[in-house]
Amino acid sequence: MIDPDFFDKACDSLSLKEICEISSAHMLDRKHADVTVQDLAPLDRADQSQISFLENKKYLEQFKATKARACFVTEKMAEHAPEGTICLITDAPYMAYALTAQAFYPIWDKGSGISDQAVISNTCKLGTNVTVEAGAVVKDGVQIGDNSVIGANSVIEKNVKIGADCHIASLVTLSHCHIGDRVSIATGARIGQPGFGFAMSAKGFVSVPQLGRVIIEDDVDIGANTTIDRGTVNDTIVRQGTRIDNLVQLGHNVETGNLCVIVSQTGISGSTKLGDFVVTGGQAGLAGHLNIASGTRIAAQSGVMKDIDEPGEYMGSPVLPLKTYMRQVATLRKMVSPKKGKKND
Amino acid sequence: MIDPDFFDKACDSLSLKEICEISSAHMLDRKHADVTVQDLAPLDRADQSQISFLENKKYLEQFKATKARACFVTEKMAEHAPEGTICLITDAPYMAYALTAQAFYPIWDKGSGISDQAVISNTCKLGTNVTVEAGAVVKDGVQIGDNSVIGANSVIEKNVKIGADCHIASLVTLSHCHIGDRVSIATGARIGQPGFGFAMSAKGFVSVPQLGRVIIEDDVDIGANTTIDRGTVNDTIVRQGTRIDNLVQLGHNVETGNLCVIVSQTGISGSTKLGDFVVTGGQAGLAGHLNIASGTRIAAQSGVMKDIDEPGEYMGSPVLPLKTYMRQVATLRKMVSPKKGKKND
Amino acid sequence: MIDPDFFDKACDSLSLKEICEISSAHMLDRKHADVTVQDLAPLDRADQSQISFLENKKYLEQFKATKARACFVTEKMAEHAPEGTICLITDAPYMAYALTAQAFYPIWDKGSGISDQAVISNTCKLGTNVTVEAGAVVKDGVQIGDNSVIGANSVIEKNVKIGADCHIASLVTLSHCHIGDRVSIATGARIGQPGFGFAMSAKGFVSVPQLGRVIIEDDVDIGANTTIDRGTVNDTIVRQGTRIDNLVQLGHNVETGNLCVIVSQTGISGSTKLGDFVVTGGQAGLAGHLNIASGTRIAAQSGVMKDIDEPGEYMGSPVLPLKTYMRQVATLRKMVSPKKGKKND
Repeated sequence: MIDPDFFDKACDSLSLKEICEISSAHMLDRKHADVTVQDLAPLDRADQSQISFLENKKYLEQFKATKARACFVTEKMAEHAPEGTICLITDAPYMAYALTAQAFYPIWDKGSGISDQAVISNTCKLGTNVTVEAGAVVKDGVQIGDNSVIGANSVIEKNVKIGADCHIASLVTLSHCHIGDRVSIATGARIGQPGFGFAMSAKGFVSVPQLGRVIIEDDVDIGANTTIDRGTVNDTIVRQGTRIDNLVQLGHNVETGNLCVIVSQTGISGSTKLGDFVVTGGQAGLAGHLNIASGTRIAAQSGVMKDIDEPGEYMGSPVLPLKTYMRQVATLRKMVSPKKGKKND
Repeated sequence: MIDPDFFDKACDSLSLKEICEISSAHMLDRKHADVTVQDLAPLDRADQSQISFLENKKYLEQFKATKARACFVTEKMAEHAPEGTICLITDAPYMAYALTAQAFYPIWDKGSGISDQAVISNTCKLGTNVTVEAGAVVKDGVQIGDNSVIGANSVIEKNVKIGADCHIASLVTLSHCHIGDRVSIATGARIGQPGFGFAMSAKGFVSVPQLGRVIIEDDVDIGANTTIDRGTVNDTIVRQGTRIDNLVQLGHNVETGNLCVIVSQTGISGSTKLGDFVVTGGQAGLAGHLNIASGTRIAAQSGVMKDIDEPGEYMGSPVLPLKTYMRQVATLRKMVSPKKGKKND
Repeated sequence: MIDPDFFDKACDSLSLKEICEISSAHMLDRKHADVTVQDLAPLDRADQSQISFLENKKYLEQFKATKARACFVTEKMAEHAPEGTICLITDAPYMAYALTAQAFYPIWDKGSGISDQAVISNTCKLGTNVTVEAGAVVKDGVQIGDNSVIGANSVIEKNVKIGADCHIASLVTLSHCHIGDRVSIATGARIGQPGFGFAMSAKGFVSVPQLGRVIIEDDVDIGANTTIDRGTVNDTIVRQGTRIDNLVQLGHNVETGNLCVIVSQTGISGSTKLGDFVVTGGQAGLAGHLNIASGTRIAAQSGVMKDIDEPGEYMGSPVLPLKTYMRQVATLRKMVSPKKGKKND
């Protein structure tokens, strides 16, 4: 049950015709166009008022037994549908579900406008329908695009530019950065602080002024308490559509490609550059000044110390190709497996 | 020396009779009931105004030489007490010490009431003796139980429910969550933001609305800058008495058991479920959709990729039973140990 | 190009004579004393209005071809300078560059004074030229030295002492701590919260009051969203000149030496003590109650479970001397390398 205290529905029901338009799915039989559903649910919990989806064959048995009124499903799987369930055909059932879910439940609550208790410099340029919540501090020269939201107690330092339709949550810090359109930044994220740069001597360390910026392109999503340092002279860049999870560290001058996926607690050291569609698992670590080929997938807890030129799956610290790593794990286990007849192992 | 700038004593002295009541310890000789102590100290620093404790045999020599007026100790160890030290007998000396320490020094300062500079919706329901410090933003429909404290500049999003006797520190974010009684949440923790959920395609990623909540049960303790994402449809749950350290990540739909201990920088991926009394060492990582048996202990930096059905100690990435892992480490060392006579190793 | 929206120059140009004074470099020929430069740039991008530096031989070819008007360089390398570039001789070119860069671009913007929208107890003692930005909450008895800055929405708990020339960024939490002079604390850092200390029993856990402080000595630099817990009875201490990166965890009673370097996402468990000049790579983990010798270097992702008495480089989890670890990695790779003629590896 979705808790109405926390989630507002945008509409009470949608017809399958409307859902097909939203999701680019199609019905097998036009006569169902006016059937309506009122909500979403997983296969095993859905009822005749709800729509569900089958993406992973693992859930085929649940699909065969579902009580859902309608279900997103690939053409191939549709034959397994139970009698009371209308199939909406798509090559990407989970994507269709995501789009439909957004139609029922907008990702973000409606903005509440400019709070009297926000502190906004009169040199800022705010678009139409901007929200700035209580306690937010927006300094000189900041620009905020139409429909964007700045959450409570966030701090936007001077001359930061934020595009349209952005959601900056509460208690976020933005400085020395340009933020594109449709960017989401979760609570506690820190964007644009100086990176870890200093000259060392036995007598002491001297900070090198960090004179670059952070560029966050359109459709990027950044998680809670993540930190992205600004560049030293060049910029730190997070490219279009990339998703970054919680507690991630991007050092100065890091560049991601488009549509990368950076899972929680990953750390990427200064000046490393990712191609497009790179995925890093949780707690992965990348040394500095590396180039990682587009399409590379780095497993959780892995450590990358050299360039990766060949896309593929990598694991270990330092990383090996996934198959080699798994063989190494197996070899090691054999070496130390307890002998038969031995006790206390 | 405990710095009086930072720590207020709740009482100037306690009699050993009072201390035995607080700590469930007992005296060997009733005549000491009215002896008083004024403070606490470690064995090697305590004097005749102070009480100490012996939990670990490693400190036996310190115990034999202590100047403490009184000391919590097991029955077995009492015979080693020096002449000037009164033994308070208990099976759990450290627990007795903790309870006595709390009697001298409350865990939290007294609340200061509702600040004029807090921003509190008039639709909130506040219990008696609630504190909301300056700059805190408390939105519509929030409920806060008796004696609970909301620290400065924290943000409590709409309809969050907080129980009685909770301590929410400064600069915390709470959203989409229910918080039990006697819960402590340290500064900078983020509870209830949307998890890392989206449908992927080569053309772009689409967020899946995250429609669950976070449930924090009674007596839970959450560390600084820790992040706990809300569920996708089901709830993320932290069960009774669990302790979570700083900079920990719990993904959407994670569930802990009762009285788990999650050490700093641990990451637990989405939908993984811990039994009761599970301990994870620092920087441990758990993949998603796993079940971890009650009583399992996972060593620091270990990586868990499969279910753990058998309680015990585990180490490595991927984890092995602790003994097997240590044997593997030893075998590897032998293989690469420098040959005798070889230099420069 | 350095973005003037974000970076204010402190001066339009500097003469080489002034630069030599700032950087302790010297000219080969006094006649260049009045030559001026207007900015800084890397070797490959500098023009005749700019100064650059050559620290690493790797960039010798760039040096030979640079268009920079002047360049910091060691005496030995000066012979490779192109005709139009004036050499400023120094043993530490990067340090000289750092000092010059600071003369052009101050590390921090000028303070803006005490904001009307800050919340400052009237029992605080503020030095001259102190800045407290909007939304900051500064509680009873806090002391702030001359020229120090408290960023927007930060929270300074009671009786905290902050020295002179400190930069506390926005949304920082300081409690139970003494901060020296010239300390920089980045946005979202948490200093002085209670550590992870409790007595355990099967019936529940009881918090042990954390009665120590955090002492941050002069010239320390602390990164974004880093957490440093206060001591239990003794203090947690970060000694002079130490640099701590983002998302680092220091447990209660940790002590660093002077001039340590703690890279991002490192975790150091309670009561561990570092000597001077210790370096920990990203995501390194150190168990509790250890002593680490001065000059030790611990590689990224390494795990330290025992004392390190012998300075040197260490890697692995648990750590080995670097050379031994690399030999182990090589041995393992050989064991599992695909046999010739075998496919699908």
